[in-house]
Amino acid sequence: MRKIFILSFSLVVFSSWSQTPLKESFNLMPWPKAITENNQVFKLNQQLEVSINGPKSERVDRAATNFLRRISGRTGIFLDKGFPTSYNDNKNAAIKVAYQNVGDLNIDLDESYHLNVDENGVTINAPTDIGALRGLETLLQLTTNDSSNYYFSGVSITDAPRFVWRGLMIDVSRHFHPVDVIKRNLDAMAAVKMNVFHWHLVDDQGFRIESKVYPQLTELASDGLFYTQDQIKDVVAYASNLGIRVVPEIDVPGHGSAILTAFPNLGSKPGYVYSIERNSGVFDPTLDPTNDETYVFLENLFTEVVPLFPDHYFHIGGDENEGKHWDENKDIQKFKKKHGLKTNHDLQTYFNIKLEKILNKLGKNLVGWDEILTPTMPTTAVIHSWRGVSDGLPNGSTLIEAAKKGYKTILSNGFYIDRMEPIAKHYLNEPIGDIELTKEETARILGGEATMWSELATSLTIDSRIWPRTIAIAERLWSQKEINDVDNMLKRIKPISYSLEELGITHIKNRDVILRNISNNQDIDALSTLQKIAEPLKMYTRNKGGTEYKTYSPFTLFADACTADAEDALVFNKLVKAYSTKASSETKNAIQDYLIKWSKNHDRFKQLTASPILNDLEPLSKNLSEASKAISQILDNETLSDAALKQLQNNLEVLKQDHVDVEVAIINSLEILSKNALNN
Amino acid sequence: MRKIFILSFSLVVFSSWSQTPLKESFNLMPWPKAITENNQVFKLNQQLEVSINGPKSERVDRAATNFLRRISGRTGIFLDKGFPTSYNDNKNAAIKVAYQNVGDLNIDLDESYHLNVDENGVTINAPTDIGALRGLETLLQLTTNDSSNYYFSGVSITDAPRFVWRGLMIDVSRHFHPVDVIKRNLDAMAAVKMNVFHWHLVDDQGFRIESKVYPQLTELASDGLFYTQDQIKDVVAYASNLGIRVVPEIDVPGHGSAILTAFPNLGSKPGYVYSIERNSGVFDPTLDPTNDETYVFLENLFTEVVPLFPDHYFHIGGDENEGKHWDENKDIQKFKKKHGLKTNHDLQTYFNIKLEKILNKLGKNLVGWDEILTPTMPTTAVIHSWRGVSDGLPNGSTLIEAAKKGYKTILSNGFYIDRMEPIAKHYLNEPIGDIELTKEETARILGGEATMWSELATSLTIDSRIWPRTIAIAERLWSQKEINDVDNMLKRIKPISYSLEELGITHIKNRDVILRNISNNQDIDALSTLQKIAEPLKMYTRNKGGTEYKTYSPFTLFADACTADAEDALVFNKLVKAYSTKASSETKNAIQDYLIKWSKNHDRFKQLTASPILNDLEPLSKNLSEASKAISQILDNETLSDAALKQLQNNLEVLKQDHVDVEVAIINSLEILSKNALNN
Repeated sequence: MRKIFILSFSLVVFSSWSQTPLKESFNLMPWPKAITENNQVFKLNQQLEVSINGPKSERVDRAATNFLRRISGRTGIFLDKGFPTSYNDNKNAAIKVAYQNVGDLNIDLDESYHLNVDENGVTINAPTDIGALRGLETLLQLTTNDSSNYYFSGVSITDAPRFVWRGLMIDVSRHFHPVDVIKRNLDAMAAVKMNVFHWHLVDDQGFRIESKVYPQLTELASDGLFYTQDQIKDVVAYASNLGIRVVPEIDVPGHGSAILTAFPNLGSKPGYVYSIERNSGVFDPTLDPTNDETYVFLENLFTEVVPLFPDHYFHIGGDENEGKHWDENKDIQKFKKKHGLKTNHDLQTYFNIKLEKILNKLGKNLVGWDEILTPTMPTTAVIHSWRGVSDGLPNGSTLIEAAKKGYKTILSNGFYIDRMEPIAKHYLNEPIGDIELTKEETARILGGEATMWSELATSLTIDSRIWPRTIAIAERLWSQKEINDVDNMLKRIKPISYSLEELGITHIKNRDVILRNISNNQDIDALSTLQKIAEPLKMYTRNKGGTEYKTYSPFTLFADACTADAEDALVFNKLVKAYSTKASSETKNAIQDYLIKWSKNHDRFKQLTASPILNDLEPLSKNLSEASKAISQILDNETLSDAALKQLQNNLEVLKQDHVDVEVAIINSLEILSKNALNN
Repeated sequence: MRKIFILSFSLVVFSSWSQTPLKESFNLMPWPKAITENNQVFKLNQQLEVSINGPKSERVDRAATNFLRRISGRTGIFLDKGFPTSYNDNKNAAIKVAYQNVGDLNIDLDESYHLNVDENGVTINAPTDIGALRGLETLLQLTTNDSSNYYFSGVSITDAPRFVWRGLMIDVSRHFHPVDVIKRNLDAMAAVKMNVFHWHLVDDQGFRIESKVYPQLTELASDGLFYTQDQIKDVVAYASNLGIRVVPEIDVPGHGSAILTAFPNLGSKPGYVYSIERNSGVFDPTLDPTNDETYVFLENLFTEVVPLFPDHYFHIGGDENEGKHWDENKDIQKFKKKHGLKTNHDLQTYFNIKLEKILNKLGKNLVGWDEILTPTMPTTAVIHSWRGVSDGLPNGSTLIEAAKKGYKTILSNGFYIDRMEPIAKHYLNEPIGDIELTKEETARILGGEATMWSELATSLTIDSRIWPRTIAIAERLWSQKEINDVDNMLKRIKPISYSLEELGITHIKNRDVILRNISNNQDIDALSTLQKIAEPLKMYTRNKGGTEYKTYSPFTLFADACTADAEDALVFNKLVKAYSTKASSETKNAIQDYLIKWSKNHDRFKQLTASPILNDLEPLSKNLSEASKAISQILDNETLSDAALKQLQNNLEVLKQDHVDVEVAIINSLEILSKNALNN
């Protein structure tokens, strides 16, 4: 009976919001559009083969080869055949991948696929080769095992993305990130079905793309850290093989320090000495939009670099120009008057429209940050919405405004992963929400991008800033709006996050590298315990006044080992919340386990040979231990002396302060647990 | 009085063999030629600056910049200035680097330097910019700290290498290693003053360098995994900036499967179907030395690629040609007869001499593995000695033979790091020893190379196969012969090995990546305990018959997480040896700590959710725990029952077997500790 019941059960196609039971069974991210299970499994063994049926596609050849390596690497199975075969040569391969066309990478791309796994094998069918790639990634996520076998879970999946633009921006100006860093992140993007790499190549802190027409740009404004044109081509080809578009950004007219270091004559303030910026923040150097030479320069530069990027879109930045040097320049003021440009915004629009024409001539559409959204801007431009409440605008409002005004638009407000905010915030950052839009307006909302600004991220740490939070953003942009249960997402994301290590992502392994550096290669257990409850200061408070960290400051310290969503803090805070609602002894014991671990931790910390770096951490370690000990006693209903309570109060005060640029992510929970005792 | 004593003490210049006390104080590797200490220290603070005095050198500019980053990264000091300055602009920098000339990278290069550290600052003086680089690396190794400060130890060092050729060979054919893997290993080489990167680019398993003249080579024989010519140039320039020469190798006429996959017409066996080799071993495909087309092809290929490598030397391999296809080809037999070539060796010499002429015309000297050492080979060739006792020759004998016959020569016999043998063996692999040579003969012994063949190493694991053992080889080739105390080397190498993490070397961090993969992301402590006593099978026994591992087999398993010189085994074996000699209670307690840890470990192992991979490890875990428990009882003089003794005997038998391609590195010690009990 049971079997029959299951069979009939499997015939029901769940709509996405009724898939909760399946979401408990399968750790898929992003969650597919429709999935049914069939209670079968396909067992993996050394005879596993992949056949490919479709027009020649380097993408699928590579993806299928990598698929075999990854399956083999995870399971330890020594496959007989290490490469996929053509379907015509091998009609019996267990995994059959079929597609109709080689996809053209653009915003009309069809990425849908159908995946079926049953005990006889696997089929992936897709209109394009890129859809086939997406299906292979889903199949990898279905790998599981019992004690004696590895297998793929039996399911039938029909999948397609909600948004066509699912991007990750990496800022390579504030800190340069070499090709291998970019490539491994492209691999990770593909693993969670993202399809746009926005390459922020130029900013105040460095010009990072070789120009043969203007070699001064990298000679004078890159510290030797830039991509050659061959490397750019290599990355673009690599991305294309993963079904990822590459959108370059050359940020103008603001953020101009690097360009103006090489070409001071194009600056808005005559006589100003421009140099590569070493600090973080918003700076004054700005290209002069009234100088014809500026447009000659930009047209030559764009004409040179545009062919490196086959994508239809080209990002010109356009953000954070405060116009200070424009205001200080009488000739620019005269120009504005002469051309009827009332504000600096109008002047910048004048500039943007000129750039738009240059780019159109080169076959590209202009993309710019939301400051470019001004009344006279042509609707061929794409508006990249980034500002929100902290910039004096309702969150995401420019996205909706742009769509309503006829612009294509993408969302980054709420996806600023460099701010080290909790994953839940990004996950729930629904682009449209309940706002009613026409079909045309909805279609103009192309999607969004996680933005990885790198003022505070070097190649050592950038992966841990991008991942795992960007997996949640990838799901927000691929999956249906109704897929928004945070707890379930937190469960599913764990194995997906770990599996990124197989692609070389360093978000886990580099944490211990940093802790070994801090400990001077002593045992890192005591530091790991602290790392699991500490988070880097959020938003931009780590860079007080924008000048605390220079580009060459050390990013090898405790805050750099810490991440958003500190591992133990996430669990502990949930326990305390549950305990506050309903005080079960099970929850209490779980809380006590943490408190006891922390109370003992300072003894281990003290065993480390002292150093200046460790001294800086001592207040955190000591006060955490003392507070945990006292709170553990409180939780056991022991009565604390006045002196002990005073010490606890003091411990908590200290823990609320900044320590080596981190915040203690359990401080609220500790206060909740102490409140009654301290208030008595 | 003490101060005066110290001052006078510091004036004594130690010759290298009387420096034992200093070797206990300073963790320098390779150990310098002469060092004195002055009991002063130079304190580091945020005002630290480096000035450069010498002709423009990109090498020194980069090295000094990286020096500042590394100091900052280690100490957490936020330096005011992130870049070095010219001495003329800044005569007061604490660190003054001066050199006379920009060095030409060749075997006559002067790499000497003088380094002085006292409380007032640091001076590095060198004849060449490359000597200055070597001095900066030594200075980094002098970084130390107490609880309140970081400082450089006060010393005076006069240093120069013993051998001019201190190389690392990386085989990128059996497994391809991308540019970033090569670059990080070049950084690590420079950190221990190595100066030759031997790039084994072509072998049976793949042709890894782009040819524009013969694109078929990579199209048909690389699986898409090769270096573009731009990447080659980039690596060569990167190496040059580190003072490292790049010697390419295109291995001919044997190891020819890849070349012949693209050009079967050049093969020695007409009609043979050549294909990229997927197994390991010595194979038959061999270029036809009697075919004029072979020389046309090689001359065109060499003419194309030689300009990419400015070094004077070009390696043509020439090894392991067993001549099977020559013997099977009647035309080749006729050719031999016609030209009076009696043996296949004679025929190969005929081939080598033709290549030597081609290379000479291109301005290069030929280097070849020691099979090229035949009576008619011109002495302009360099002999690369690799064979030893396991190949039927006294170890290192071809090195001495070559030097005596007038050839320049380099040693790799004894430096085969891929064989996973103990570091002590490589460290004590003295090239010349007590053999008496003339001054001229001695001068012909240029040095040696660690050889990293990559049948069993992917980019995930290769660093842990190269490091830290290659540090010991670097010392053997740089330092004086008398620097050969293994225990002291093992003490000094620890911090140097850890510090390679700052250069991105993955030898430590990727171990846990693999254990996480094996555990399916569960707690890895139980696996770490096993990893610390297990070593990958040595020599080539892991590849039984040469066909066990294919190029696409998984290298993500337990043996890949293990390394030579297993961490706990090294200590435990030493303890047991000491205890056997003199049974102190201190030693006994230390031994018991390990035995108790191991006896408890299987309980932790069993807590892991089972999987096929973990099942394979279970016998190792279980028998280690049982044996450790019994031996711990024996050590405490408890009497074991006959059944218990029988079980112990059985445990030890099982532990002596292979387990998932590792050997238990403590097995001898366990047997020593059990012997009396088992013999009773």
